[in-house]
Amino acid sequence: MDIREQINEALNTLHVKKPLVHHITNYVTVNDCANVVLAIGASPVMADEFKEMGDMVSICNALVLNIGTGNERTLLSMIEAGKVANAKSIPVLLDPVGIGATPFRFESVSTLLKEVKFSVIRGNMAEIKTIAGLEAKSSGVDSIDDESDGVKIAKALALKLACTIAITGKTDIVSDGIQTYELDNGDINLTKVTGTGCMTSSLIGSFLGAGSKPHVSAIAGIWSMSIAGENATCKLKIGEGIGSFKVYLMDAISVMSSDEFREKGKIALANQ
Amino acid sequence: MDIREQINEALNTLHVKKPLVHHITNYVTVNDCANVVLAIGASPVMADEFKEMGDMVSICNALVLNIGTGNERTLLSMIEAGKVANAKSIPVLLDPVGIGATPFRFESVSTLLKEVKFSVIRGNMAEIKTIAGLEAKSSGVDSIDDESDGVKIAKALALKLACTIAITGKTDIVSDGIQTYELDNGDINLTKVTGTGCMTSSLIGSFLGAGSKPHVSAIAGIWSMSIAGENATCKLKIGEGIGSFKVYLMDAISVMSSDEFREKGKIALANQ
Amino acid sequence: MDIREQINEALNTLHVKKPLVHHITNYVTVNDCANVVLAIGASPVMADEFKEMGDMVSICNALVLNIGTGNERTLLSMIEAGKVANAKSIPVLLDPVGIGATPFRFESVSTLLKEVKFSVIRGNMAEIKTIAGLEAKSSGVDSIDDESDGVKIAKALALKLACTIAITGKTDIVSDGIQTYELDNGDINLTKVTGTGCMTSSLIGSFLGAGSKPHVSAIAGIWSMSIAGENATCKLKIGEGIGSFKVYLMDAISVMSSDEFREKGKIALANQ
Repeated sequence: MDIREQINEALNTLHVKKPLVHHITNYVTVNDCANVVLAIGASPVMADEFKEMGDMVSICNALVLNIGTGNERTLLSMIEAGKVANAKSIPVLLDPVGIGATPFRFESVSTLLKEVKFSVIRGNMAEIKTIAGLEAKSSGVDSIDDESDGVKIAKALALKLACTIAITGKTDIVSDGIQTYELDNGDINLTKVTGTGCMTSSLIGSFLGAGSKPHVSAIAGIWSMSIAGENATCKLKIGEGIGSFKVYLMDAISVMSSDEFREKGKIALANQ
Repeated sequence: MDIREQINEALNTLHVKKPLVHHITNYVTVNDCANVVLAIGASPVMADEFKEMGDMVSICNALVLNIGTGNERTLLSMIEAGKVANAKSIPVLLDPVGIGATPFRFESVSTLLKEVKFSVIRGNMAEIKTIAGLEAKSSGVDSIDDESDGVKIAKALALKLACTIAITGKTDIVSDGIQTYELDNGDINLTKVTGTGCMTSSLIGSFLGAGSKPHVSAIAGIWSMSIAGENATCKLKIGEGIGSFKVYLMDAISVMSSDEFREKGKIALANQ
Repeated sequence: MDIREQINEALNTLHVKKPLVHHITNYVTVNDCANVVLAIGASPVMADEFKEMGDMVSICNALVLNIGTGNERTLLSMIEAGKVANAKSIPVLLDPVGIGATPFRFESVSTLLKEVKFSVIRGNMAEIKTIAGLEAKSSGVDSIDDESDGVKIAKALALKLACTIAITGKTDIVSDGIQTYELDNGDINLTKVTGTGCMTSSLIGSFLGAGSKPHVSAIAGIWSMSIAGENATCKLKIGEGIGSFKVYLMDAISVMSSDEFREKGKIALANQ
């Protein structure tokens, strides 16, 4: 099946399966993450008590680990949740928010990569470069890196970690180590609302939970956010700003269809 | 006084008394809970440090305990807050979010039920069934149970625990053990936004804080959410989705009046 | 330079510098705080793990400490973050949410005042009075005090603590101990949405991070919120409530300009 057909199929499958997606995530954007998971047609769970991680993960279809406001306690819960998910073949996504900002974050991610097998890692260019052991320019949790080497980095890291790497930015890059794709949807307003990265990770997690392949899930999740961003900007009227944009964004995700993927989705195999 | 008059009275009293409602609640929906409490005309406090629980509860008019993202630390705070509230005759509401999902949640609720006397317990059918010791089908934090036995279960549990039981779903059921009511407002969109259950608990807590009886508070809180849900759906235009719905929902709660209760509220005594 | 020119300049400078503002703040309003920081043109970071506080603060341009849902663990992180910020001459703002509500909060603030040097302290009248050691009437986290003595209290406390004191309310008062200003923008709807106080603190922190003087930052931050509140209320249509108001508020902050400051900002030197 052609990649575009697989992505369309992924959305239709999600609508049928309504997967349950467990999150250990940051308290900044958690409400928006829960709402996008519902908006795309899946069901969110957010919990972080160590004692219930194994039980909670076991009833879910995918696990999203986001280190945005992680601490020593929740790191332990993430490791436990990830291990149980691995043992039960439940796909796991990692969002290494701001990994380059502090040694604590770098070490948290290093530990997670050692203890847990991920299906998808999604980050901005600076975050993925940092995981790849490269110099990255970051400004707190926002990336200010250019994307010139992205294809090469994504592919190499995907091969090294045996997982799909998704780099989101002006052009999004998704690689499973074999094929690498460049995606060209999105809108500058997506950078003006907090949590669009986290929400994209939750959307990818929703597709993973519906049983789609990691690279298909990554592309479908990114399109759900980036096409919705385009649609939301189209609805903005003069005098409206990020408050209205965020409302239109949620609206657009909640009415996203495979027809929209078909008509608006921009994808190309990268030159490698 | 007729039950409908008592419910209308409850909203008018709340507007005059502007009660202070303390929450120990989850970080997923906490912002929405604070905003609905303000919207209905009460004042929210959210805090969970054990050391200040007794002092904080003592200046409040009601206490809402929601276990959505509870952990070992906040469970201790909930117990302490509940005990102090009981000692000072401050009404306490329990929202046993996802109680059936993990043994940790089940044991947390068991402990709370042993240590604290509740005025109202509000949950979906699966959650209330689990408390009642019955088999329940749940999907994470969302209930997928039918409501056929609801009236019987609500009444029996209300008598057993000597508190008002509120089961929210397509038809809402409220029982104080003597009278059991069925409420028939609401809209399917309320299931597409995260936290409408938590928010309903906060609304009930607001009515409790204004001094209304537990079953009257439960009905008034449920109507505030379910009638607002109907009003919000009426305002939805083509192409709008859950982003707009949530805005209209908050709007509708903030302009809710006893006139709306009178005109739109659907309530009937259940056949027992 | 005239004070009005300095305030206008502060907004223009912020737009150029795009400062990074670190927050240790409450989980109730944290998403809104992150979004207003982005809306005004700065970049937010929220993190509270003790182990990464020094590293995170070191890459930021300002630090905002908000005790809204503080606990023993995060209090230690606040102290550490504050000390590192002081050592690196990074400006620090304190938002003493509900300080009068519990001894735990009072002692937390006392410890912070002893360990950390603040550039700005922003609170409502009851909170600032409590810091000043005066009797204050508070209702949970909302102030119910009159503002008659505000000018005197703000000036005295600013001199005592050698920092700028900002009291927000119907009339806002800002004093650096030398000059004391009264600001007269704002709208009653700002009291009907949770977190407008926290968001104002985050806005002030954004101006501090851009290098503006503390009292200029305080005025610019307050105007950004209070003028936006006026603009948002102007856009409200019949039947709309706090849901729509909050959307319009975020819109208005995200399009705020020094032209609006010039045309609408109301400021006067206080009679002392």
